Amino acid sequence: MRIAVDAMGGDYAPAEIVAGCLLAAQQFPDTELLLVGDETALRAQLPAALPANLVVWHAPDTIAMDEDPAKSVRRKPDSSLAVAARLVAQGEAEALFSAGNTGAVTAAAALLIGRLRGVDRPGIATVLPSRNGWAIVCDVGANVDCKAEWIVQFGVMAAIYAEEVEGIANPRVGLLNIGEESSKGDSRSKSAHELFQAAGLNWIGNVDAKDTFRGVTDVIACDGFAGNLLLKASEGAAEYFVDLMRAALTKNWQTKLGALLVKPGLRQMKRKIDYSEYGGAFLLGIKGLVVIGHGRSNAKAVASALRRTRMGLEHRLVQRLETRFSPPEASVAVG
Amino acid sequence: MRIAVDAMGGDYAPAEIVAGCLLAAQQFPDTELLLVGDETALRAQLPAALPANLVVWHAPDTIAMDEDPAKSVRRKPDSSLAVAARLVAQGEAEALFSAGNTGAVTAAAALLIGRLRGVDRPGIATVLPSRNGWAIVCDVGANVDCKAEWIVQFGVMAAIYAEEVEGIANPRVGLLNIGEESSKGDSRSKSAHELFQAAGLNWIGNVDAKDTFRGVTDVIACDGFAGNLLLKASEGAAEYFVDLMRAALTKNWQTKLGALLVKPGLRQMKRKIDYSEYGGAFLLGIKGLVVIGHGRSNAKAVASALRRTRMGLEHRLVQRLETRFSPPEASVAVG
Repeated sequence: MRIAVDAMGGDYAPAEIVAGCLLAAQQFPDTELLLVGDETALRAQLPAALPANLVVWHAPDTIAMDEDPAKSVRRKPDSSLAVAARLVAQGEAEALFSAGNTGAVTAAAALLIGRLRGVDRPGIATVLPSRNGWAIVCDVGANVDCKAEWIVQFGVMAAIYAEEVEGIANPRVGLLNIGEESSKGDSRSKSAHELFQAAGLNWIGNVDAKDTFRGVTDVIACDGFAGNLLLKASEGAAEYFVDLMRAALTKNWQTKLGALLVKPGLRQMKRKIDYSEYGGAFLLGIKGLVVIGHGRSNAKAVASALRRTRMGLEHRLVQRLETRFSPPEASVAVG
Repeated sequence: MRIAVDAMGGDYAPAEIVAGCLLAAQQFPDTELLLVGDETALRAQLPAALPANLVVWHAPDTIAMDEDPAKSVRRKPDSSLAVAARLVAQGEAEALFSAGNTGAVTAAAALLIGRLRGVDRPGIATVLPSRNGWAIVCDVGANVDCKAEWIVQFGVMAAIYAEEVEGIANPRVGLLNIGEESSKGDSRSKSAHELFQAAGLNWIGNVDAKDTFRGVTDVIACDGFAGNLLLKASEGAAEYFVDLMRAALTKNWQTKLGALLVKPGLRQMKRKIDYSEYGGAFLLGIKGLVVIGHGRSNAKAVASALRRTRMGLEHRLVQRLETRFSPPEASVAVG
């Protein structure tokens, strides 16, 4: 397995990306990592003797975190992201990982690798913590102004992802909405609700944002605006909660003493909601495996994301999606 | 001041509604409460000698929490909600409070009391906890499929509410979106962003769901779908977090001992995010003050909501909104 890594993308690139790749190279000796970026910058972060499964692939240019996504990809064909995407398009690598500008990664994937036949819009799938572990949300921001049909496709793709990569048999699929009844929501939600019933999924109906944390569903389908809102709101609420807790625990000597005692329990809790334990979001619907890391990815998050990327390759996620969206013609006519 | 209370609306009605009114009647001797509902049911919860400022107003019918909102209001003119709304429409009371079915309260207000001239759609404004205390979010669910113009009106009304009721001078107003840049979001968000610039507000631009908890804005304007999502997501995340914390604190004898010590700090923290401390959501844009309580309102939440209702009357919120949306003609022509 070969993974092309955009080594210049991310808030802490290239240092943390390179460090994460070194970790992953050691953990997964069967996986080859193509570290794409400015060779001088990358060598400065690497040991003199590289691991056998890590290769530096020079790309002189870089796309910044705040550049216009589509334009930057078109204007910078020699950027680490564009070069890494072309390695996948040309079959030199089977997967792309980038912790760079999400919009630019999405644009590079769509423009340079291309969409799977039958998929209208690729969607970003990521995880939201819940009582049972995680729920998969798709789309979380690649698409706004969505049609109901696209939302249903996000649900179908995320269900295949949940089954293949997360190992959830017959995953439950729900539509993110503002109430459980089928009559709830805006007109698009109502159309999507109807289409979902015929989509051949383990469809459980509408789920509201509160229930998603209660583990009522494995897959949450939504348009990118709502999905992004859900994700950011939960991140914001968690951050706010941690702040409040810190203040509560350092209130006086008594609570400070108590804080020392509860620390091991809280550390375990933090692990449960820590994105770096999970790592990456999958861009589903592309003719190659594409995993997007959090902009703030550190080495540990990069290594986690590469482990998940490897799982996607192992479980042939892209091939499964392809089969579902454009099934091969039956070789023998029936009837 | 007279407030008509729908005593039969809410998951714990009439017991907790009546108990809350008894609390409020004692706390606010200058405020008269009209307790609207089935007289027999209400008397069963009341002491033989009523407080001087509490009156029972008989209404034989009740609207259930899960009834169709608009239909139930039309079909049940003698329901506690419809009777209470008519008391406001006829000037017998200045404000309506109900912890009943939110959709039915919104429908009763629009149909029986009526919209303020110049307001396209009434919006529900409620509070979201943030680092500085609270932010006001409007709309949180009265309207889906919103036009950009309505979202701007929600922002204008919520700013007046923040100023008059919450005492925030020159409140900062932001548009809930999936990124801060003006180019972000769906087409409706982009139109609203443009319209907001000319709305004469202390406009701070787009805010993302994460930043809302950081106290970057006093008012969050949004369509009802997004606002409801934000609210429910934060409620769900808080609930999930409390569950995790409980598990962390009861892990072993050491954490249990620590939990005893940190308890006073945590109790204070709980108060900060407890809806019953705040009480009610205001339905803005109606020709009378309308406050909607949480369905799960207990007596304490009802009393808090009635305190806020009183503040709305004291600060003449409806009159301020009226002046802004349909200003009286200038009596002398200028120029």
